[in-house]
Amino acid sequence: MKTIVLCSGGMDSVTAFYDAHARQEVSGVLGFHYGSKHNDRELPWARHHAERLGVGFRLVSLDFMDGLFSSNLLRSGGEIPDGHYAEPNMKQTVVPFRNGILISIAAGYAESVGAEGLVIAAHTGDHSIYPDCGENFMKSMGRAVEEGTYARIRLQRPFIGLDKAAIVRRGVELGIDYARTWSCYKGGEKHCGRCGTCVERREAFQRAGVIDPTGYEATPDLPARPAQ
Amino acid sequence: MKTIVLCSGGMDSVTAFYDAHARQEVSGVLGFHYGSKHNDRELPWARHHAERLGVGFRLVSLDFMDGLFSSNLLRSGGEIPDGHYAEPNMKQTVVPFRNGILISIAAGYAESVGAEGLVIAAHTGDHSIYPDCGENFMKSMGRAVEEGTYARIRLQRPFIGLDKAAIVRRGVELGIDYARTWSCYKGGEKHCGRCGTCVERREAFQRAGVIDPTGYEATPDLPARPAQ
Repeated sequence: MKTIVLCSGGMDSVTAFYDAHARQEVSGVLGFHYGSKHNDRELPWARHHAERLGVGFRLVSLDFMDGLFSSNLLRSGGEIPDGHYAEPNMKQTVVPFRNGILISIAAGYAESVGAEGLVIAAHTGDHSIYPDCGENFMKSMGRAVEEGTYARIRLQRPFIGLDKAAIVRRGVELGIDYARTWSCYKGGEKHCGRCGTCVERREAFQRAGVIDPTGYEATPDLPARPAQ
Repeated sequence: MKTIVLCSGGMDSVTAFYDAHARQEVSGVLGFHYGSKHNDRELPWARHHAERLGVGFRLVSLDFMDGLFSSNLLRSGGEIPDGHYAEPNMKQTVVPFRNGILISIAAGYAESVGAEGLVIAAHTGDHSIYPDCGENFMKSMGRAVEEGTYARIRLQRPFIGLDKAAIVRRGVELGIDYARTWSCYKGGEKHCGRCGTCVERREAFQRAGVIDPTGYEATPDLPARPAQ
C-alpha cells in the first residue's frame, strides 16, 4: 500500500518511517513546523532520513499555531518543565489537538498524491495527559480520515503495541543512527537530559539495553515514574 | 456555551454565525485562507460580519495547501466548471479533507481560548461528491474532537436539518444582508452566476421566495438538478 509517513525527526517517527519503508511503498514523508521551541532541531533529521532512504520530504509551515494557540511547547509559551513526562505539570506542553491537525493535513496530502495509508508513530507509552494521543481519539480520527476521503485512507499505527524501548530495539534492527534524531522540548544546542521527553529518551535506551548515542547537557539520575 | 464559529464569508457560515450569536456566547470567528481562487473575495465578509456583531475575528493562513494539494478550487488548479454542483465534474473542486483540517484547527483554537463548542454550517444540501461533508465523516470527526480535547469540545451543526433555502429564510429573520456574502468559486469581480456554487446560491433565493441581492455577471436559466 502506498503510504505517507508523518515524521518529526524524533525517535519514534523516524523509526516508524524506516519500518514503513521496509514493509511498504512510502510515497512521501511529511514534517510540520508549528512554532515549537524544538522544531528547528528535530525537522532537519526528518529531512535527513527521508533523503537517506530516497523518499520525498515535504515541510508544512503551521507557524500560525504559535500565535493562535496556548502551550509552553510553543515559542510564545512559558518554560518547559523538568521531570517525568507523566507529571501533571507536563500538561503545559500540550499543543491543543495537534495530532488532529497533523493527521488531517496528512490525510489531504495523501489523497492528493494517490496514497491509501497514513503512518503515525503512536505507541503504548503515549500519555493519558495528552487527549489527542489516546485510543478513543485515534480510533475516531481514523474513521474520520477513512470516511472523509475518496481513497478511504487508512490511519496506520504500527507501533501501537510497542513501548519506546521496543521501538529502539526495532530501530537498531533497521540500522537507525539515533544520534541523528531529536527529542528535547527545550530546543537548545544539546539535549538537556532533564525535561520529560529527554527523560523518556534516556529511559528507552536503558530499558532496551542499547547504548544511548545522545550527547546530553546533563544526565542526573532518572526520576521515578509517578503513579498513573 | 462558549463557541467558536468557522466562517468563510459565504451565505451558510455567515448565517450560522448570526444564528449562534443569537443563541449562545460566540468567543471568536475563525476564517481560513487556504489558497483558493475565491478566498480573497469571501473572507473580507467574514471579518465584516464579525466586526458588525462585535466578535473577534482571526484569520488563519493555510497557504501551503495551494502548493501541496490538488484541486481546481485552488489557484494552482485548473478552471472551475460551470453547471450544477451535483454534476460529477464538480469533483475537481474538492480540496482533499478540507473540512477535517479546518475543524481540527478550530478545535485547537477553541481549546486554547476556553470554548466548549465549535459551530460549522453543514446542511442537508452538502453534496455526496464531497466525502468530508458527509454524515459519517462529520459524526466521526465530532467524536475525535470531543475525545481529543480536555474540554470535550462539541462539534455543533445547527443547520444539519435545513436546506440552503431554509438557511436564507433564517438569515432574513436575523437581519443578514446577503449582498455582503460571497459564494462564487471563480473569485472574479462579480459572482459569475454559472458555476456550481452560484447556481446553488441563485436556487436558494428563488426557493426561499427572497429577492436575491447579488450582482451576477450573467443569470442564464438555472440548470436542472442531475439525478443523484
